Amino acid sequence: MPDRDHDFIRACRREPVGRVPVWLMRQAGRYMPEYRALREKHSILELCRTPELAAQVTLQPIQRFDLDAAIIFADILLPLEGLGVGLHFAVGEGPVIENPVRAPEDVAGLTSFDPVVDLGYVLEAIRIVRRELEGRVPLIGFAAAPFTLASYMIEGGSSRQYLLVKSFMYQHPQVWDRLMRLVREVTRDYLAAQIEAGAQAIQMFDSWVGCLSPDDYRAYVLPHSRWVLEGLAEYSVPRIHFGTVTATLLEDMKQAGGEVIGVDWRIPIGRARGIIGPDFALQGNLDPAMLLAPRELLVRQVREILEEAGAAKGYIFNLGHGVLPPTPMENVDAVVETVHSFLG
Amino acid sequence: MPDRDHDFIRACRREPVGRVPVWLMRQAGRYMPEYRALREKHSILELCRTPELAAQVTLQPIQRFDLDAAIIFADILLPLEGLGVGLHFAVGEGPVIENPVRAPEDVAGLTSFDPVVDLGYVLEAIRIVRRELEGRVPLIGFAAAPFTLASYMIEGGSSRQYLLVKSFMYQHPQVWDRLMRLVREVTRDYLAAQIEAGAQAIQMFDSWVGCLSPDDYRAYVLPHSRWVLEGLAEYSVPRIHFGTVTATLLEDMKQAGGEVIGVDWRIPIGRARGIIGPDFALQGNLDPAMLLAPRELLVRQVREILEEAGAAKGYIFNLGHGVLPPTPMENVDAVVETVHSFLG
Repeated sequence: MPDRDHDFIRACRREPVGRVPVWLMRQAGRYMPEYRALREKHSILELCRTPELAAQVTLQPIQRFDLDAAIIFADILLPLEGLGVGLHFAVGEGPVIENPVRAPEDVAGLTSFDPVVDLGYVLEAIRIVRRELEGRVPLIGFAAAPFTLASYMIEGGSSRQYLLVKSFMYQHPQVWDRLMRLVREVTRDYLAAQIEAGAQAIQMFDSWVGCLSPDDYRAYVLPHSRWVLEGLAEYSVPRIHFGTVTATLLEDMKQAGGEVIGVDWRIPIGRARGIIGPDFALQGNLDPAMLLAPRELLVRQVREILEEAGAAKGYIFNLGHGVLPPTPMENVDAVVETVHSFLG
Repeated sequence: MPDRDHDFIRACRREPVGRVPVWLMRQAGRYMPEYRALREKHSILELCRTPELAAQVTLQPIQRFDLDAAIIFADILLPLEGLGVGLHFAVGEGPVIENPVRAPEDVAGLTSFDPVVDLGYVLEAIRIVRRELEGRVPLIGFAAAPFTLASYMIEGGSSRQYLLVKSFMYQHPQVWDRLMRLVREVTRDYLAAQIEAGAQAIQMFDSWVGCLSPDDYRAYVLPHSRWVLEGLAEYSVPRIHFGTVTATLLEDMKQAGGEVIGVDWRIPIGRARGIIGPDFALQGNLDPAMLLAPRELLVRQVREILEEAGAAKGYIFNLGHGVLPPTPMENVDAVVETVHSFLG
């Protein structure tokens, strides 16, 4: 099927759809037994770095659920390896950046990045998935937004208060700017390479941006996010711009661009629509924890979101963040069925 | 000085003030060498449980900075000991609840709570501080809001995704209601006892509430927070209702009550004022990380907040969350001086 006929692509472009499209962030993951089986034999990085395995994982949820898009299996931190800061995943502790950027002079030591050289395995996985999908559903590529990637580089891993990155921004604004210019180029090049390899839409994840005030977002982040999104405009594929805890940042995220704005559950979807207006598509925003609720409550919440979203045009159903490991698979089915049976 | 003449109390009541009042959440803490000196000899729980030491810590920032209010040194989790779930602080890891509430039947096993018996040491510390302050500045008492306390009981400590508490709420709404009725009574009784011991204002911390959607806040939290705040109305002391990540919850937090609504830095203070309207005082909202910035940037940000807040009436300057351990003390001075020299 040509891209333009898929409900997911049509919704991104605010064209009428047959059914409301639905996909789920982290739709391939630990809640699926077939994923856990692979993880028993391979680390996350091995799965990412082996195109056949990454492709297999990408397709697992597509084979099991009636989803409207696939998203390539990868990790937002993969570009860090090419930048020379080192990356591994500690058991039960998440990502560890081995040589974080702590002092201004560390920025000069970062190595240059070429997505074809450094992340060729992701591009190859994209090509495999496209072949195997045979046009059944579109494939989404993704990357971290510059702020989220730069924050990881400075914090060195997960963070609760983002003190190191904020101190760095406030104390060394010029070096921060240099770092963000480097990171935004990596992000743009990586997303462009994914599109050239076959990604039919891209999502830019600014997962950590909600730790900032709107003033700081405008001063330290917005120009760089905009630069990435503008740099991808020539490809004419839908660009999804997503973050969490962004209720007060949506006006500015709009300015940074994208065809689709993705929001989390903290903002009612109708209110998000009021802020982003009619010129953007909207994606979201069920609390992933709601998939741990009894089915009746879950289905009611999905329906409320659909009704409030004005789901007929320019709307893609998704969670407000990734699927959680304890999610029962029958609840994923319930979500997909409820969305698809919704008559706006 | 009678309570009614203090700028802090007047601002809570939206009466004209001589200067904009300022105090800082966690104004007694690790950033002060005199606090660190005490912590070398005593654990957090020892400091809390020894009224003379808790009083001494409470007064440390008052002796050093020109703050407009003291806040009793304690921990929001202290009531958990009386409830029989056990509490200790693991080195470098924060609070650990020894017997968390994981199953519905665990709620029945909670023991009954009497603030005078279980937290008499906090009440005694309040009496000591009041004597030593001799009316120089008012003393604020505080407690966790029911949601935040119940969440800790279920999560068993710090949490990133609040999965256990959300699952509990969704799967066992009636037991959740029972738990919240128990916890709200603890919270109300504890705050009432603090007022009776001498606290001249109280703050209810709903630090974790920002993980919820507005719908969930209304369904699972609001009635219980309102019950606590209404139950304290008879004392006629200002009630500050604070939470973080509450940009989309402020309308509902208003409904739950309090004279003062406290907000974090994620929402511009003028926008928070627009939502809470003229009938509440407002407290906040500098990002605590901004105290790690160069002085010039810090002072500029403080001034912007003051200008935007409409600081002449019904406004108390504070951070959006607690003072951070790496904060330089001269930056606390800079904040206090900038606030006090502001001419609305």
